[in-house]
Amino acid sequence: MQTFSPYAILNRKRRGDDLAPEEIAGFIDGFTAGRIPDYQMSALLMAIAIQGLSAEETRALTAVMIESGEQWNLRSRFDFIADKHSTGGVGDKVSIVLAPWVASCGVKNGMLSGRGLGHTGGTLDKLESIPGFRARLSRQEFEKCIDDVGCVIATSTEGIAPADRKLYALRDVTGTVESIPLITASIMSKKLALGPSALLLDVKAGSGAFMRTLDDARALARSLIAAAKDSGTRVSAMITNMDQPLGTACGNVSEVLESLDVLRGAGPDDVRELTRAQAAAILEMSGRFDRESANEALDDSLASGRAFDQAMRWFAAQGVDPDVFHHPDRLPIPTTVIEVQAPRSGVIASMDAYAMGMLGVEIGIGRRQQDDEVDPAASILFDRKTGDEARAGEAIARIALGKIAKDPAALRAAYLAAIRITDNPPERKTLIYDRLDDTED
Amino acid sequence: MQTFSPYAILNRKRRGDDLAPEEIAGFIDGFTAGRIPDYQMSALLMAIAIQGLSAEETRALTAVMIESGEQWNLRSRFDFIADKHSTGGVGDKVSIVLAPWVASCGVKNGMLSGRGLGHTGGTLDKLESIPGFRARLSRQEFEKCIDDVGCVIATSTEGIAPADRKLYALRDVTGTVESIPLITASIMSKKLALGPSALLLDVKAGSGAFMRTLDDARALARSLIAAAKDSGTRVSAMITNMDQPLGTACGNVSEVLESLDVLRGAGPDDVRELTRAQAAAILEMSGRFDRESANEALDDSLASGRAFDQAMRWFAAQGVDPDVFHHPDRLPIPTTVIEVQAPRSGVIASMDAYAMGMLGVEIGIGRRQQDDEVDPAASILFDRKTGDEARAGEAIARIALGKIAKDPAALRAAYLAAIRITDNPPERKTLIYDRLDDTED
Repeated sequence: MQTFSPYAILNRKRRGDDLAPEEIAGFIDGFTAGRIPDYQMSALLMAIAIQGLSAEETRALTAVMIESGEQWNLRSRFDFIADKHSTGGVGDKVSIVLAPWVASCGVKNGMLSGRGLGHTGGTLDKLESIPGFRARLSRQEFEKCIDDVGCVIATSTEGIAPADRKLYALRDVTGTVESIPLITASIMSKKLALGPSALLLDVKAGSGAFMRTLDDARALARSLIAAAKDSGTRVSAMITNMDQPLGTACGNVSEVLESLDVLRGAGPDDVRELTRAQAAAILEMSGRFDRESANEALDDSLASGRAFDQAMRWFAAQGVDPDVFHHPDRLPIPTTVIEVQAPRSGVIASMDAYAMGMLGVEIGIGRRQQDDEVDPAASILFDRKTGDEARAGEAIARIALGKIAKDPAALRAAYLAAIRITDNPPERKTLIYDRLDDTED
Repeated sequence: MQTFSPYAILNRKRRGDDLAPEEIAGFIDGFTAGRIPDYQMSALLMAIAIQGLSAEETRALTAVMIESGEQWNLRSRFDFIADKHSTGGVGDKVSIVLAPWVASCGVKNGMLSGRGLGHTGGTLDKLESIPGFRARLSRQEFEKCIDDVGCVIATSTEGIAPADRKLYALRDVTGTVESIPLITASIMSKKLALGPSALLLDVKAGSGAFMRTLDDARALARSLIAAAKDSGTRVSAMITNMDQPLGTACGNVSEVLESLDVLRGAGPDDVRELTRAQAAAILEMSGRFDRESANEALDDSLASGRAFDQAMRWFAAQGVDPDVFHHPDRLPIPTTVIEVQAPRSGVIASMDAYAMGMLGVEIGIGRRQQDDEVDPAASILFDRKTGDEARAGEAIARIALGKIAKDPAALRAAYLAAIRITDNPPERKTLIYDRLDDTED
C-alpha cells in the first residue's frame, strides 16, 4: 500500500475519482485527532459537496464517523426498538406525537434529537419549552426511560459520533452543508451509532425542507437507506410534503400543545394523518402488526385515551410535572399577540414554508446561529391554511411574541408576503409522496 | 448592496454560480489581511478548481492579487520593455538564452523568475549555480541592470503580489494547484504587477509540462491572454512541445553552460530553434522589426558574437566574474558520472520528460518541497535523443552526481524505464504547435 497522502486524496477527489474506504477513514480519523488541519478537511468537504461520493464511499464515511465514538447497539438490549428521524421542516412536531403513540401500542422507541437551525424547528427546542423537561440524559437514563415508559427523546450526547460534530461545525462555515453524501453520513452516523432495530426516515421535500424538489428528496432517501446497508438496522423512508407548514402552530410550546391535542384525538388533520402513517410503518416494521392491525391499534389507542396517558407518563419520566398542562400560567406565555387580517377575500392558494420558518427565526422560534437561544413562548398560529377561505379583514393568523419585541406592521407584511390568496381553490397536494424501503434494490 | 458573506460566496461557487468582482476582491483581501481563515479560503480554492472561473472572474482575481502588492509599471519607465514566461518544463533554459540574445538586438527585457518545484526546473536555480550570481535584486537594482546592460533576470521580491504567495502555499497543500483560472491568476498577477510593454508566454504541452494535452495548454494560453485584457501589456503565447526534455542537458550548471553554447552559435538545435522563434516574436512585438528583419538581426547577433558578449556583460552586471566560464574548476563539479548504456540496438522512440524530471529530483536537480536545496552540479546529459540511433551497449546518457550519492544500477534502471527504443524511427514531432495573440477574439 502507498503512504497515506492527504494531498493525493484531495487531488483525486477534485478530479472526481472514487476514494478507497481506508483513504476516507484515514482522512477523517486524522482530522478528528487533529493531525489533518481544518484547511485540508474543508477542501475535501468542498470537493465532496461538488463531486459527490459513491454509495460505497458514503458507507465508508458513515462507518468512520460511527467509530469515532460510542456505539450503543440498542437492538441487542431490547428485542425491538425503533427510531424515527425527520430531515427537518416547519411546524414538524411528528416525533412528539409519534413517540408516545407508538409506545402506547407496545412498541418501544428511542430518539436522540437535535435543536433547530435556520428556518427549521428542532424537536428538542419544543420539548425543552415545557418546564422541567430534561433532554440531557446519560446512556443509562436513556435506556431506563425506555424500560420504564417505552419511549424517550433526548439530546445527542458528546459520546455519539464526535467526528460528526467537528465536521458539521466546519461544513457550517464553508458552504458545504447542502450535500447529499455529507448529509447522509451526518444523519446515519448518529442513528447507526445507536443501533436501533428499525429506523423510519421522514425525508421532507418542498419550500420548507432542505431538499426543495421531489427528485432531491428521493435521492437523499435512497442515499440514507444505502448507508445503512448491512448495518443490522432496517430502514424505511417516506418522502413527505413540506410546501406549507405542518399543522396550525409553529413555535416551541405551541407545538407541544398541538401535539397533545392530536394525542387527545383532536388537532389538525395533517399532523394526525402524517404521524399515523409513520407510526403504522414502525408498528409494521416491528413484525407484530400488519398494515390493518397497525392502523386499528393506533386508532384504538387514540380513542381510548391510552396514547395521551402514555404521553403524560413519558413527560413525567423526563422530569415534567404533568399538572403544568392544566395550568397554562405555568407554561411560557406570549406577551403580545398580533392578528394578521386577510387583505382580500378568496382562498389561501399557498403558504411558503421557508418564509414562515424565517419569520419564526425573526421572532425567536428558531435560531440563526447554533449558540442562539430560542424563545419558548413565540409562535405563529395559522388560523387559515392552504385551501381555506378567508374574507377581507378577517383574521387568518396570529403572531405571538415572547421576550422579543417587533414592529407589528412589519410582521404582518412578512406574513402576507409568504401567502397567496386567489379566487379559486388550489389543487390539493399529497401529504405523502412516496415510500422507499431497504428491501428494494 | 448585501453584507459581504464568505459563507454565501462559498455556497454560490459550490453550485457553479459566477461571483461578482467585488465578492472575489473581498474574499482575497480578507484572506490576505487574515480576516478570512485558511479553512474558508481552501474551500473556495477547491470550489474554483472544480467549477472554474469565467474570464471576468479570473480578471477580478488577478486584479486583487496585483493590488495586494507593489506595481512597478515598467512600461512607463522604459519606452519598450519585454518579459517572457514559461509555464515550466524539463531542460527548459530558453529564458537564459533569450534574455541576452534579445537585448543584443537592442530590445530591453526584464524577468522575475521562480525556483523549480517537482519535476520542472527553475531558471533561478540554474543561474544561481554560477558562483557570484545575484538573483535577489531591489526594484532599483532591477531597473538599473536593464539601463546598464539591457536585460535582467531576478527573483520575485516579497513586494510583488504577496496574496499569490499566501494563496500558493495553501493551494500546494490542498490539491488545488491544477486549475487553469488559479494558475492564470498566479502567473499573471506577478507579470502584470511588473507592467512590461509586452509579454511572451511559452505554454508547454506534454508529459513534462503541467498541461499534459494540447487542448489544456491551449485553454491555459487563452486564459492567460484574457487575464491581461485592458491591462496595457500586450500578450502573445506559443504552445510548445514538452514531450521530451529540451536540449541535451538537464541540470543547473549544465543548463547554463548549454545556454552559452547556443549563444556561441553551437548547442542543440531544439533549444536554438525554440529560443529564436520566441526572441523573434518579442522583437516583432517591439514594433521595430518585422518577421524577416527580426530573424536577420538574431542570426547576425549570434554569428557576430554579440549575443555571447551580451550574456557576459549581463552576467557581470548580476555579480558573476565572466572568467569563471574559462575555469571549469571554479564551477560546480560532479563527483561521479554514471554512464547509461543502450540495452538493445535501435532508435530512441520516446523520452518521458516527466520521468526524466523526477529522476532529476532524485539526484538533486529539482526539489520535492519548496524549502529543499538543489544540487548545482547534478545533471542528466542526453547523448542520444528521440529519433537518434543507438547500438546495444553504447552510452546513450550520462548521469552526473553532485553531493548526493545514489545507487548507479537504480539510476540506470530509472533512466531506461523513461525511454523506449524501437526498430523504426518515430514520427517527428513539431517543436511549436501553435501561436495565440491578444489581437484575436
